[in-house]
This record gives sequence, C-alpha cells and structure tokens, in this order.
Amino acid sequence: MARIVQKFGGTSIADVERIKAAAQRVKREVDAGNEVAVAVSAMAGVTDELDGHASEVSALHDAREYDVVVSAGEQVTAGLLAMALQDVGVAARSWLGWQIPISTDGAHGRARINDIGTQELERRLGRGEVAVVAGFQGVGTDGRVTTFGRGGTDTTAVALAAALGAERCDIYTDVDGVYTSDPRIVAAARKLNKITFEEMLEMASVGAKVLQTRAVELAMKRGVRLQVLSSFNDTPGTLVVNEDEIVEQETVSGVAYSRDEAKITLTRVADRPGVAASIFGPLAEAGINVDMIVQNVTADGSTTDLTFTVTMGDLERAVGILEGQRQTLGFDDLVSDPNVVKVAVVGVGMRSHAGVAQRMFQTLAEKGINIQVISTSEIKVSVLIAEEYTELAVRALHTAYGLDAD
Amino acid sequence: MARIVQKFGGTSIADVERIKAAAQRVKREVDAGNEVAVAVSAMAGVTDELDGHASEVSALHDAREYDVVVSAGEQVTAGLLAMALQDVGVAARSWLGWQIPISTDGAHGRARINDIGTQELERRLGRGEVAVVAGFQGVGTDGRVTTFGRGGTDTTAVALAAALGAERCDIYTDVDGVYTSDPRIVAAARKLNKITFEEMLEMASVGAKVLQTRAVELAMKRGVRLQVLSSFNDTPGTLVVNEDEIVEQETVSGVAYSRDEAKITLTRVADRPGVAASIFGPLAEAGINVDMIVQNVTADGSTTDLTFTVTMGDLERAVGILEGQRQTLGFDDLVSDPNVVKVAVVGVGMRSHAGVAQRMFQTLAEKGINIQVISTSEIKVSVLIAEEYTELAVRALHTAYGLDAD
Repeated sequence: MARIVQKFGGTSIADVERIKAAAQRVKREVDAGNEVAVAVSAMAGVTDELDGHASEVSALHDAREYDVVVSAGEQVTAGLLAMALQDVGVAARSWLGWQIPISTDGAHGRARINDIGTQELERRLGRGEVAVVAGFQGVGTDGRVTTFGRGGTDTTAVALAAALGAERCDIYTDVDGVYTSDPRIVAAARKLNKITFEEMLEMASVGAKVLQTRAVELAMKRGVRLQVLSSFNDTPGTLVVNEDEIVEQETVSGVAYSRDEAKITLTRVADRPGVAASIFGPLAEAGINVDMIVQNVTADGSTTDLTFTVTMGDLERAVGILEGQRQTLGFDDLVSDPNVVKVAVVGVGMRSHAGVAQRMFQTLAEKGINIQVISTSEIKVSVLIAEEYTELAVRALHTAYGLDAD
Repeated sequence: MARIVQKFGGTSIADVERIKAAAQRVKREVDAGNEVAVAVSAMAGVTDELDGHASEVSALHDAREYDVVVSAGEQVTAGLLAMALQDVGVAARSWLGWQIPISTDGAHGRARINDIGTQELERRLGRGEVAVVAGFQGVGTDGRVTTFGRGGTDTTAVALAAALGAERCDIYTDVDGVYTSDPRIVAAARKLNKITFEEMLEMASVGAKVLQTRAVELAMKRGVRLQVLSSFNDTPGTLVVNEDEIVEQETVSGVAYSRDEAKITLTRVADRPGVAASIFGPLAEAGINVDMIVQNVTADGSTTDLTFTVTMGDLERAVGILEGQRQTLGFDDLVSDPNVVKVAVVGVGMRSHAGVAQRMFQTLAEKGINIQVISTSEIKVSVLIAEEYTELAVRALHTAYGLDAD
C-alpha cells in the first residue's frame, strides 16, 4: 500500500468521456490498495473561456474578482470527477481550496501556498475515500479565493503530495513523457525514462512546458518524486527525480528552444559603473524579466553595446520604458528584433564533461548559423539565433549530441 | 437614501453585454445614494450545461457533488458583475455562499437558509461598496456547498433583503412584470401594477413562474416588498405586496394555466374509511405531489371512483406504484390521461364576491368545454379540462372577468 497523488489536466480531462477515463485510472490505483488524492484542472477550454469573459467585462480587472471567476472551472471538474468515481463504486469526495483549506498569501493570480490542512483528508484517505481536489486555487488570509497562475494545478498536486507525504505524484497529460526535444520538429526525438529536476527546470525555461516551473521547483525542494505520463495510453512515462537516482547520466539530455524571445540592443551606452543598474532597474520595476545579457566594449573604449532579451509580450513595454529614459541613460540607438529564437542544450552531465559548448558552436557554424548571444549555466548552454534557423539548429544539435533514436 | 437588493437572472444576465447593462442599473441606484446588494444567477444556459455534464457523468449522482458543480455558474457571474461595476467606477466585491456565510441545512439541491451573516456586508454597504452575491447557493453545517433548487437566486435575493432590512427587492427578469394572463396566448393581457403575495403564489402554482415560489413565500413571511421588472427597458414593473397595500382590489387578478398536469382515475375503489390514506400514502412516501382530488360515490354506493392529478414527470412512477399495489388497494381499473390542463382564476377579491366560480363554469359551458375536475381555494378556482381547449378557455375567461386591455 502506498499513498499517491494523481493530477489530471488539459486534454486528459477535456470532456465527460475523458473524466470517466480519468476515474478508471484513479480506480486502478485504489483497487491496488493505494490511498489516492487527485488534483484536477478545468475542462479543456474552460479557463480560456472564463478568462475571455473577464477581459470582455473589463480590460483592467481586479485580480481578486478574476480569481473568483477563473477558479470556477476547477470546481466543476472536481465535482464531476468525484461523481464519476462514485459511479464506478469508488468512495470519493471533492474539495475546494477553501474547504481543505489550501492557505495562501494574498498575491492573487500567482498566490503561494503557506499551508495545507491535511488532518481531515488523511482521515478520509485512511478509510479508503479518494480526495478530489480542485486545482489551481486556494484561499487567502482575507478569506478570498486565490489562484496560482496558468498550470497551477501542477503546483496543487505537488504541494498535496508533499503535505500528505505521498510516495509519488503522477502528472497525467496529453504527452507520454519528457522528450529529448520537441517531437514536432525532431522526428528522431526519444522519450526520457528519467530526468533530473534541474534539467526539467532548464528545459522549461527554454519552452518545454510539460510542467509548471513552480511545481518542479517545489517538488525538488520537498523531494516529491514526479512522474509525467499520458492519460491516453499505458506506456511508462518520465520520472523527474533527484540526480542521485540517475546512475548513467548522459552528457546532454535534451535540446530545447523558445520562440518567445525578443532582442533589444542599446548602442554606444556610456561605459561607466552603475550603467547596467540604471538600465535594468526601471525594467525590473515594471515587472519585465530580462534574460540573456551581453555587453561588448566598443572600439574607442569609452562606450559599450548592450544586448539582452525579453519575452515577446514584454517587448513593446520595454522599448517604451527605455525610449522614455533615453536622455538619462545616454544611449545612441535602440534596435529591437522579435525574429529570434533561443536554443539550448541541457544536461547535468555537462558539469563533468568539457567541450559541450564547443560542440554546440561548431555544429551551428557548420550549418552556417550565426550566434547572436551566448549564455551558459552549470547545466545549460543557450544561444540566440535568427528564428528562421530554429528547426535546422535543433535537429543538428540533437544529432550532434547523439540523442537521435536508433 | 435607502437600502435595496437587486436580483439579475436568466436572460437579464445572459452574456457579457447584459452583465454590463446590469452594472449600469446597479450604478443608477448607487448614484441615487442607495446602499445596494445584488444577487446574481448563472449566465444563460450555464446551469443547463453543468447539469448536462453531471447527468452524463453519472445518472444517479451524489447531491453533494451536484451542488459543487452547478453552483460554479453563479460564482462566475458574481465575479464578472463585480468587475463590471468596478469598471464603471462603482466599488464592489463578490461574495460566495460560504464567504458571507449563507448558512443552510444539509438538504442538498433544496437547502433552506438558516442564517445570513450580515455584519461584514453591512459594514461594506455603509462605506458605499456594492455586495455582489452569488445566488442559489449556501454552505451546509458540514461545510459543503448547498444549493436552493431552480430559481433559487430569487430566494437568495429575498433572504438578503430580509436579513439586511432592505426597503425593496427588485427582481430583474426578461418580462416587465406580472400579467393578467400569459401574453403569448392572450393578446389582451395587461401588466398588473400590484399583486398580492397570495395571488402570486396561486398564479405560480398554476404555471406563471415569474418568481420561485419559495422566494414569494419568504417575502410574504418576512414582509419584503418585491418588484418584478424588466432589465430590457425602463417601464415600471409589478409590485408584489401585502393585501393592505392594494386599495381597489379586482375580483379576479389573473387567469393562469398549467400543462404540466396528468390525471389518474381509479375506478370502483372500496368506499371505506382509510382508503384514501392507503392510496395516497405510498405516493407521498415516493415524494409524489398529488394536486386536485375528487371522489365520487358510484351508483351502488359500496365503491367510489377516485380521480386526482400529478405532474407529468411523476405520472409514470405514480402509475407504477399504484399498479404494484392493486391487490392491496382493491380498485377495478386505473385510467391515466396526460392530455389535460389546469386553468385557474385567481384573485383575493373573490373572498368578498359571490358568483366567481359560477361565472367560470358558465363561461366554459358556453364554449362547450367539459370540466373534468374542480378544485377551489379561498382566492382561486381551478378546473381541469382537456388540453386542446387551453387557449380557448384562457381567452374566454380573461374576457369574462373583465381583464382584457382596452
């Protein structure tokens, strides 16, 4: 007997038929003698629909009311899945954020969980009742509904698994695991049996959004064993685990990319102490995340060219803020380019292997692809290239690091 | 300055445009210096959709989970209307059943309100904040979501008005008031300026479902002045008030009808004490409401024919129960007829006027319409006739009692 948390989201709970199929997966674990808690998302399209209504009603809507509106989707699914379980003879009860309670701070739309009341849940799990928890939502200190941001049901599932001391947290989705690269552009991509939390985070940061990043961070911090698997078939998924659980580590585990990047270059910025702070300070205050940053000294040595990336959604605002402070900042020109892509190779094995970055640069050079910006972390090398080379670059790197399926 | 409760339901809150229009109506009351609480239904079609999902998932679903599912519709509207109000500069906050709390018993799907926590609402109303309350829902003693049945937002509105000591409870709907008869079949029907609670209840019992019956009963009991009016225009609506507020009372206020009737006749039932109880007892136990009942002694004097009506939805079950006990009950034959309609004339004035029933019988006789069953109350005379005569009978009675518009 084990205690297990299952999460159903997206297309794995798209409609009534899929809810019934999810109930069968829960039943299987119950029949195997396990205690099961389930976290559920809204049915496919529901959150988008509610979000659309909110935007139509008011462009700048109150975050507190927005949370009331969008959290209704998960409420519906929780009730329906509890019914579906009862219908196949499994004792079940739905739980909304305020009922458990899942206590959060007051940051509406991106609330963080402070505490989960587990006493009543544990009592009921102990007598064989499945807890079906509405994902994505909690209750703030002022008693109002809070939500965790898109993909927040992953966080609900992981937080539940941690609070309940679950042996495993199974994330059911519409893909059957984490791949070495995006199968839509790399036909030879392979499913990984295991991946480390760190790699998962780096893959997510370059666009491989199988799991909400917060959920992976939380799982890593709390030591929750995650499994990503498909609700459409019974093939084994990908385990997301600590590095010590992976015996033979590949140098590079995957090649990821993100098109959601835009490049901004400020030319001939005065090269003096504090200039970077004066540029990135206002952007940070506006909540704009700056990612890759490079700075080149110009020929005359007194000025510098500064290049960095922001998400596409932030580009217009970032340009506006910088242009508005052109006098203060004292740059010559501002050039922005949305037609770029970030490509990254990721792998914890590169810590102990030299030459990983060099192979990347060489592979891209052989294909005639110019690298605009380079950024590295302990387990990742990222480059910014022109967007038109995306598929070519990703496929070439996948082959170069020996990731292609046989 | 007054305190007012407004209720928006059905098509008056059908979509985002209608929600914005509702916000304007709320704003008008706020601008006039009034304190306003609003009760809202789900957007048009949403409750039906959720109900459909629940039925698809499980034919015999748990009432507790059903309430979780269907109450989500009102939650969405409450959040959206609060946003819409804020968008036009009116301070507003949404309230779910559990947040207020609206404390109920545990009768899921038809819960009764025990108490409404008004302290925080009053504090906020006092500082000019509109309370937008999700209708139809409360929270049971075990902390689970409960609902009040179809049309339950009317009850939320009236209960709020009573708890807050509101001066008026305005029910916005898609009709502009209560009519002397159904305008779809009586072209000459007139809107009533005032109607008594008692008349409203009797009209509802014969099919004129402008308000949930429970809400009218509650308003009568608690002395809440109701107004039914259209959210689509600015014409005055119908006030539902105590009899003493109506100075000149018409003998008959309206002619209503209900097609949701079916007739059952048991022939040659033994005419002995206790036989009625033995017949209606099993039906009551099965939750089947029996309405009109007539009993005629047969020629030989030892048996009796018993005729009564049930709703169409209960007919099959009622017949099944009775046939199952044919031996015990000892009747000769069971004849059922779904092709009947109940037509009623209603008016508190008939208490002091003789001949009201006689005029009804005469009018129907002149049109050659046979009366199958008669039933009377203090302020209503109902007859059961063949369904094909519905329109003819209703129009003839409307004219006979002088209700036609000039």
